Amino acid sequence: MSRVAYVAGQYLPHRQAAVHIEDRGYQFGDGVYEVIAVVGGHLVDEAPHLVRLRRSLSELRIPAPMSDAALRLVIREVIRRNGVETGIVYLQVTRGVAPREHAFPKAVKPVLVITSRRSRPADPRLGREGIAVITIPDIRWQRCDIKSVALVPNVLGKQQAREARAYEAWQVDRDGHVTEGTSTNAWIVTPDGAVVTRAADNAILNGVTRGAVLDIIGCEGYRFVERPFSVAEAKAAREAFLTSTTADLLAVVRIDGFPVADGKPGPLSRKLREAYLSHATAV
Amino acid sequence: MSRVAYVAGQYLPHRQAAVHIEDRGYQFGDGVYEVIAVVGGHLVDEAPHLVRLRRSLSELRIPAPMSDAALRLVIREVIRRNGVETGIVYLQVTRGVAPREHAFPKAVKPVLVITSRRSRPADPRLGREGIAVITIPDIRWQRCDIKSVALVPNVLGKQQAREARAYEAWQVDRDGHVTEGTSTNAWIVTPDGAVVTRAADNAILNGVTRGAVLDIIGCEGYRFVERPFSVAEAKAAREAFLTSTTADLLAVVRIDGFPVADGKPGPLSRKLREAYLSHATAV
Repeated sequence: MSRVAYVAGQYLPHRQAAVHIEDRGYQFGDGVYEVIAVVGGHLVDEAPHLVRLRRSLSELRIPAPMSDAALRLVIREVIRRNGVETGIVYLQVTRGVAPREHAFPKAVKPVLVITSRRSRPADPRLGREGIAVITIPDIRWQRCDIKSVALVPNVLGKQQAREARAYEAWQVDRDGHVTEGTSTNAWIVTPDGAVVTRAADNAILNGVTRGAVLDIIGCEGYRFVERPFSVAEAKAAREAFLTSTTADLLAVVRIDGFPVADGKPGPLSRKLREAYLSHATAV
Repeated sequence: MSRVAYVAGQYLPHRQAAVHIEDRGYQFGDGVYEVIAVVGGHLVDEAPHLVRLRRSLSELRIPAPMSDAALRLVIREVIRRNGVETGIVYLQVTRGVAPREHAFPKAVKPVLVITSRRSRPADPRLGREGIAVITIPDIRWQRCDIKSVALVPNVLGKQQAREARAYEAWQVDRDGHVTEGTSTNAWIVTPDGAVVTRAADNAILNGVTRGAVLDIIGCEGYRFVERPFSVAEAKAAREAFLTSTTADLLAVVRIDGFPVADGKPGPLSRKLREAYLSHATAV
């Protein structure tokens, strides 16, 4: 089955799926995106992803390309045409195509691109053994709550992590607090057992997986605080973990080369991971 | 004469000029660009633009798509095919096309796009009467010295300026200092007659027009300091102006609605503008 992409109203063979060189996504990073997991043919947490997409569009004052009902249909058609049972759907909306000029063009139509690809379940070893992170300065813009495609600092940070043989780079603000990973949210469990993650301010993306894990924590009655934490606090934590649509929930067992606690996934991280995976498959 | 664009080795009709949806420029803003003025068929300050392009590529670790000699030939061919006597050339280089994944892909070829368009000389009234700027917080990333296409904060800032009926928005850092405009460098002349512009640190783009104007200032023996200046200092300045490839040099006569000095272009701004225009046409 060859891949198919939805591009501005048409279903195209993936290899021929193209956008104009004056699409503002290409020339200005003037667009937003979402990645939704597909598990057993079902979309995981589709509703909050679409809510966040609308919010990102609205913050950039890009009109929605279609109604949510229509969007849901197109997403399903892209999944169907690509025969995806387990994988992801990628949605991107840009402000549209116009002669290059920074300010918003008049009379432009947003461009919607949707792709879907199969993926194997993430390496189970990562879930069992946990992953390493490094810490790097957060050099991104001050509206990381908008899921824009202007991701070049995230690209540089992820590459730095790869070269340090780490899974992710935790970005650190000027006050020494961890904001988030380059494509994941950051969490710790304090020595006295409270789960801590940064509040969803302008410095981080309000992760959909983050929200689902917060719900689980609430239901299970774990102690929980939304506040910033420092790198030192993370290194001294009882447990640490990260969340995202593609990573699910992974225990962080090394930070900048130092083991977190005994360097193995902690019990709370393991429980939350299992609970999240149940949530994702139960949708 | 219909427009032609150079896209990854081919000269294409502008309307059909497209890049793949998985071009990293589109999905990550993972690319850089340059805009070079064409005056009377000649490229203005081509050499420093190509030097800066190489620097931006090198900072993002994107290989150069071709030698400078080859690039100069392609630029000229694009100008020729578009019949541009007065206008601009736009160059964009992205990391290439690869399945979406933040870290650098392996074995990917950079994608080079070059377009050229005619433009009328800028409205002479702007040169005679000067322009207004507003000031806004600088929310951009911390590597504005890299001319990346991840320009969404610049887009938002320029739009804010337009809606305030201003030509440009001067961005202000956390210390209250002006960094630069959304697509121009910022300058003032102090009450005692010294020209001031911010040093080319990581917070601003090292403008090619800025460099040319610095050379003129040096040759003419005007007093000059590279240092940050505050909004208050700009409002109390004797003169203010901005520079860029497309704006040349324009006097700033209003800041946030307040006139700079008597609200007319000052004598030094006018001299420097004339000297810069001579430089641009003399190339």
